[in-house]
Amino acid sequence: MSKVRPALLRGFDQEYLPREQLQFNALVDLIRRNFELFGFLPLETPSAEREEVLTSKSGIEKEIYAITRLAADPGEEVVTKGAMRFDLTVPLARYVAMRERELAFPFRRYQIQRVWRGETPQARKGRFREFYQCDIDIVGREKLSYLAEAEIPSVIYSIFREMRIGAFRIRINNRKVLRGLIARFGVAEEKAAAVLRTLDKIDKEEAARLLDDLAREGVGTATAKELYTLMSGKRSTDETLQLLAGLAPGNPVLAAGLEESRRIVGAIRDFGVPDSAFAMDLGIVRGLDYYTGTIYETTLVDYPDVGSICSGGRYDDLAGYFTDTKLPGVGISIGLTRLFAKLREAGLLQPPPRTPAEVLIVTMEGQEFRRYLEMARALRGAGVNTEIYLEPAKLKKQLEYAEKKGFRVALIAGEAEFAAGKVQLKNMATRTAADCAAGDLVEAVKRLLR
Amino acid sequence: MSKVRPALLRGFDQEYLPREQLQFNALVDLIRRNFELFGFLPLETPSAEREEVLTSKSGIEKEIYAITRLAADPGEEVVTKGAMRFDLTVPLARYVAMRERELAFPFRRYQIQRVWRGETPQARKGRFREFYQCDIDIVGREKLSYLAEAEIPSVIYSIFREMRIGAFRIRINNRKVLRGLIARFGVAEEKAAAVLRTLDKIDKEEAARLLDDLAREGVGTATAKELYTLMSGKRSTDETLQLLAGLAPGNPVLAAGLEESRRIVGAIRDFGVPDSAFAMDLGIVRGLDYYTGTIYETTLVDYPDVGSICSGGRYDDLAGYFTDTKLPGVGISIGLTRLFAKLREAGLLQPPPRTPAEVLIVTMEGQEFRRYLEMARALRGAGVNTEIYLEPAKLKKQLEYAEKKGFRVALIAGEAEFAAGKVQLKNMATRTAADCAAGDLVEAVKRLLR
Repeated sequence: MSKVRPALLRGFDQEYLPREQLQFNALVDLIRRNFELFGFLPLETPSAEREEVLTSKSGIEKEIYAITRLAADPGEEVVTKGAMRFDLTVPLARYVAMRERELAFPFRRYQIQRVWRGETPQARKGRFREFYQCDIDIVGREKLSYLAEAEIPSVIYSIFREMRIGAFRIRINNRKVLRGLIARFGVAEEKAAAVLRTLDKIDKEEAARLLDDLAREGVGTATAKELYTLMSGKRSTDETLQLLAGLAPGNPVLAAGLEESRRIVGAIRDFGVPDSAFAMDLGIVRGLDYYTGTIYETTLVDYPDVGSICSGGRYDDLAGYFTDTKLPGVGISIGLTRLFAKLREAGLLQPPPRTPAEVLIVTMEGQEFRRYLEMARALRGAGVNTEIYLEPAKLKKQLEYAEKKGFRVALIAGEAEFAAGKVQLKNMATRTAADCAAGDLVEAVKRLLR
Repeated sequence: MSKVRPALLRGFDQEYLPREQLQFNALVDLIRRNFELFGFLPLETPSAEREEVLTSKSGIEKEIYAITRLAADPGEEVVTKGAMRFDLTVPLARYVAMRERELAFPFRRYQIQRVWRGETPQARKGRFREFYQCDIDIVGREKLSYLAEAEIPSVIYSIFREMRIGAFRIRINNRKVLRGLIARFGVAEEKAAAVLRTLDKIDKEEAARLLDDLAREGVGTATAKELYTLMSGKRSTDETLQLLAGLAPGNPVLAAGLEESRRIVGAIRDFGVPDSAFAMDLGIVRGLDYYTGTIYETTLVDYPDVGSICSGGRYDDLAGYFTDTKLPGVGISIGLTRLFAKLREAGLLQPPPRTPAEVLIVTMEGQEFRRYLEMARALRGAGVNTEIYLEPAKLKKQLEYAEKKGFRVALIAGEAEFAAGKVQLKNMATRTAADCAAGDLVEAVKRLLR
């Protein structure tokens, strides 16, 4: 038979070996546990939505994947076209608008699912066409306290601290501050969005190129340089607030943004996030027009090239495309597939903390198989993940299997052991072995696994 | 602004309210824990695969969804077409063929992911276009012991016993027994596959209709009736084995199937599955030609209409389309989305055992917010899921929110409580309240949650 080459589709190629999958799952579990610790409820939405639901947010058609049956029935008509979600925010908006009367507000949900984007994949940058997003949002009805904006960094802090991936910094800024600033530098209201999109690249692009881009948008050279210096400067949070205080008089938008920022910075500190882990940073812009208050990006201090590992912001209206109810909210997203690829590259991944491969029961031909089953039942009953080697094979081969799969303990019992009422426990990490009485097996194994 | 109707795509409409999502997640967690207890390793594969990989298994083109960008760039050429996976077996085959040298065999993997099929959705039957499958497979290289076939029912037994969804029965049969039987009834070899596909409907279709179908396939009326009686009869496992022993002489295929079945039935009992939970049943057929040994279906004793909730079988060659390496294996699949819909309909779902909504800290205006934050930090530090009500609102409204979201405990502290160094703990289930000293808060809450 001619063979099909077993290969992956370009951009749909983040697939792990078992050990990596365990590491990935450990991150998912950690994120999920922290989201729940802060009272967020789980949500999953279907992978495909009605096309008109997804395209309600304009400008992303090129990135959306439509789905169609490979071979349709003759004459079949597709009533409603479907497409794959490209983020978790549009489905959230649709969900809240559909189920407004059944939900308790403020609605706090987390969602850890895959999304699909038809971008050019760049494995080196950790950019794929299919990837996991881990989102939380707090959605109010008609109103939402600034405290929600202040709470978000405490969730991020809790997650990345537990992840042990080195020093990180949650960088925040405020949309009103940004609007006030560029107004102060004479950028016209109608050019604000384009200028902000350019300034969003401040971390990624060379200064000269960025200044060129600003010039193309009609910002004078001197102004552009001033703006650049202001926004790229590294200051402490309090220095930034002081600097803004000097610029705010006579600029009501900036003044309002400064006032908001002061209040939120104070609350973030109250929420227990130390200044070593967060900072107000005027260079944080976030391209989307959608954000109206605090915006967030999170970077690894020692690995700036990784870019933002967790971003989001405050918005005034989640679901304006679907409902007249005003739904202000705040949310952040962790692009986990990219983060995982980058952590692996930087050697920052922890060994999997938990493995299904705890105990392998080695089996010997000629012994009553039932005895191995009894051991397995006792161990599983105590919550120990246990596999019995089911193939007839030499001891050496079974231990090689245990090694390769990453078992922590191998149990060895043959004629001599059964006759003496004993079992040999082999610690696969230290390559040492010791006997234990058959009756103490569960306790002895648990001791070894601890 | 004109609104888009917030609605779901037909067949892509299994989306839950938070409480249901918690129940669903509890089932996923239970299944995952049991899979790991038996030493299966996790695997996730990309949602989309190369079209040629998926269509290597023929006859399912109509059910496969292709993906294409909604708006392509002008002149853009799609180099490799992609499509959504319709099961977890083809991706497993592709995975094992790709990574043969890196995996430890027998390769035991579990996979809990969504699949997509362009079938006609029937919500009443729990049939959707997007649904979860929970699969395990044990894949050998060149060989696989019959013990793997015997172990599978012990995994299923462990899962459904823990799920507490009433009595269930794992029904097994053997492909060689089936082939031997229909040969004995004079069905020609080349008609065997079609006849077996018809007999696969024995649980679902009326006898008269089934007999008609068999007649159309050229099976004589008397033979068809005999076959029907034999296969639809309800017998104990030992009665079935006895019956086959009477039919086997002179029929080498049946004799081989009987021998295999005897061995496997004995081993299933050794693996600890009681006869009340499994039975050999000649009416189990499984349409796929792919299976070569034991086949499995699992049904709820008191809800036969639900149909099979867990099916699978032994196959001789997993990845023949991709590699020359012979990869015999055995696997089963739980169609979780359908099972969940059916359990909900039958009222068999347990309340969610675990909820992120454990403690709500009610907040009062005029109090120092930091005090609420301190309580939250202490509780979260002890692993208690805790939410602080962040909006300014009356006590009544906050308690209504606690009620609606399903919180188990509300903490109430205002001026009087803070002055006295106390906190009021409200048990939301019993609607009773008691004070505790601020210093004993964590312990008091944990007691309430137990």
